[in-house]
Amino acid sequence: MKIAIMGFGTVGSGAYEASKADGNIEVVRILARHGREGYEYLNDIITPDIDDIAGDPEIELVVESMGGIEPAREYVLKCLRAGKHVVTPNKNLISACYTELMQEAAAHGVKLRFTSAVGGGIPWLFNLLRTKRCDEILQIRGIVNGTCNYILDAMYDKGADFSEMLKIAQEIGYAETDPSADIEGTDTLRKTVISTNLAFDAAIQEEDVTCYGIDTIQACDISYLKKKGLVCKLMMKAEKKDGAIEVYVEPTAFPEDSLEANVKLNNNLITLTARHLGTQSYFGQGAGMMPTGESVIQDVIDIRDGREQSIGIKEASGLKADNSKAIHRYYIRHDRMCEHIEPLIDTYEEKDGIYYCISKPIPVEKMHEMGHHRKEKGKDMFFAALAE
Amino acid sequence: MKIAIMGFGTVGSGAYEASKADGNIEVVRILARHGREGYEYLNDIITPDIDDIAGDPEIELVVESMGGIEPAREYVLKCLRAGKHVVTPNKNLISACYTELMQEAAAHGVKLRFTSAVGGGIPWLFNLLRTKRCDEILQIRGIVNGTCNYILDAMYDKGADFSEMLKIAQEIGYAETDPSADIEGTDTLRKTVISTNLAFDAAIQEEDVTCYGIDTIQACDISYLKKKGLVCKLMMKAEKKDGAIEVYVEPTAFPEDSLEANVKLNNNLITLTARHLGTQSYFGQGAGMMPTGESVIQDVIDIRDGREQSIGIKEASGLKADNSKAIHRYYIRHDRMCEHIEPLIDTYEEKDGIYYCISKPIPVEKMHEMGHHRKEKGKDMFFAALAE
Repeated sequence: MKIAIMGFGTVGSGAYEASKADGNIEVVRILARHGREGYEYLNDIITPDIDDIAGDPEIELVVESMGGIEPAREYVLKCLRAGKHVVTPNKNLISACYTELMQEAAAHGVKLRFTSAVGGGIPWLFNLLRTKRCDEILQIRGIVNGTCNYILDAMYDKGADFSEMLKIAQEIGYAETDPSADIEGTDTLRKTVISTNLAFDAAIQEEDVTCYGIDTIQACDISYLKKKGLVCKLMMKAEKKDGAIEVYVEPTAFPEDSLEANVKLNNNLITLTARHLGTQSYFGQGAGMMPTGESVIQDVIDIRDGREQSIGIKEASGLKADNSKAIHRYYIRHDRMCEHIEPLIDTYEEKDGIYYCISKPIPVEKMHEMGHHRKEKGKDMFFAALAE
Repeated sequence: MKIAIMGFGTVGSGAYEASKADGNIEVVRILARHGREGYEYLNDIITPDIDDIAGDPEIELVVESMGGIEPAREYVLKCLRAGKHVVTPNKNLISACYTELMQEAAAHGVKLRFTSAVGGGIPWLFNLLRTKRCDEILQIRGIVNGTCNYILDAMYDKGADFSEMLKIAQEIGYAETDPSADIEGTDTLRKTVISTNLAFDAAIQEEDVTCYGIDTIQACDISYLKKKGLVCKLMMKAEKKDGAIEVYVEPTAFPEDSLEANVKLNNNLITLTARHLGTQSYFGQGAGMMPTGESVIQDVIDIRDGREQSIGIKEASGLKADNSKAIHRYYIRHDRMCEHIEPLIDTYEEKDGIYYCISKPIPVEKMHEMGHHRKEKGKDMFFAALAE
């Protein structure tokens, strides 16, 4: 199968390397503004012009690994309309434009697949879809941001502070220069939107997902939770309940003897609960050149061989996101016991003017709203759901 | 697709139930000596005669869920020779007759698949084969016997003794009346043979796998290891090394903050390490009517839709099992510090005439041989490898 790769950064070159293992995938075009060091021998097939790809009838499938939304969206649409399958690890694009792109692919009789957009090298989305052939997904949840997990794990392990570990994560290349998408939970949110839509044949949008990140966590939170036998992780969660989908992203404190608590370094652990199958988890490298590149090529092989799992975009369930009944207990750390917070607290300890609280059951939306409100006011607060 | 089910016990009826979810699988024959309670409406399609299945040209695929080797082997061969695909969860059969059955299937242009034979509801073998399309498997390992894990977890949790927990496991149906295949490691060994042959395109036999079970473990082992921050699990392990495969089953002590240590109840956790992908683990229910039944039906759907992963039986790697270079440190508990053991020990504690030792690096085969020798003599000993 002749394919093209649009964008030749880390994942694009990983996909190129991984394609060699198959033997029947030929990369005939690469969209890039300039060549890449170490790949000078590919200069002849590099082009800065999307029409050299979209207009080439030999190319059956295009890997989009440019990242971001525009011009990736425009180029992907061009390729789909030209009758080419598309495989992409681009979570920003798929999270934002899922319905539009899937409908466009269906209209032109081609496939759009993005297994690597969630979990990197872990075949999470592939197996999620496969499970649905025989079973009904009730809940999905997971640690899907390796950068946050790396920071939280190091804080737990070394007692280090957040800003210190973020800096180290940036130095070793786990975190971006602008780390906000990771630490504020946006990256996890996008992966949640994608996973939720596949799990429940839904069409939820980014704005449907309540999200709170780990950017206000401090060493004192980690050490307080540790003393209680708890480990904090940034979690995505979506659950089918009463004809709707509860879906949110938040820091969550797990018992130290749970699988989640023992996910180290920048690894991911993603879990589904199905009606008959029960609970099943997938662990591994959620990012990186070769894991993600391989996952891209697995999609390419599946499409080439007609083995890709069906995505229920046509028979959409019509399930909507609704967090109004989502409610649970939280760990909350704050510096002023005001009249807004006090009624919500079950037990607390005060030390050096800081309140470490365990709340009564609180609606998720109320908790997040309070957190964001405090953050805007520049006031100190952190919270983490207590895992059930 | 019209299919038949041979054997209508727990897994057979689970496969029957799971087949309903697909909508395009019709069970037209069931091989059983008599009907099953609650399934009286199936009495018309029940037959005790294999020829009603092998001789029926309408039946394209046969699920063999009888268990054991004979007559399952004979019946499966009959079906393959009659041009029918076969799906089976029967680990005893596949472990013992892998090469014969795969060759017979290939000779008649039909498929033989057995994802559910290892890991029950976990799509372990399916994903292992899928990974091989793009990568090279270097090592596999895992907790694959839910009964042993249930016993070990309960001993760890409650401080209970082995025989007590075995009895409870039998009462709730996790362990057989004759539990030897579980606790002596034979069941794990069979799953090791099957996983190893798929991982490395090999044709190893049961007798190639060195195996030591958990039948000599005592509460004092669990509590000694617990004090050292270690948790004991029964593990399969196979690794490609220097042109051969190290492959063995043995109790292994993991740090309490590892994923393995935190696998609770009767769950399984199975892990692969691939050259580019790194380490990936699969967690879930390794047995049970619906998980295993669903895994059977997933194989059926894959074969029907031409999506099953290729098994490299034709291009067998020729890799042989060889444990001669496998070597690591062990925890050893025994009641007499004799001249055979003393030179192997690095450090030890003695309490009430019992020696709790950490060994120097010892060849795996030597350790197992010593364990079996002591067991035959009726002498007290237990050992567990120290996880690296």
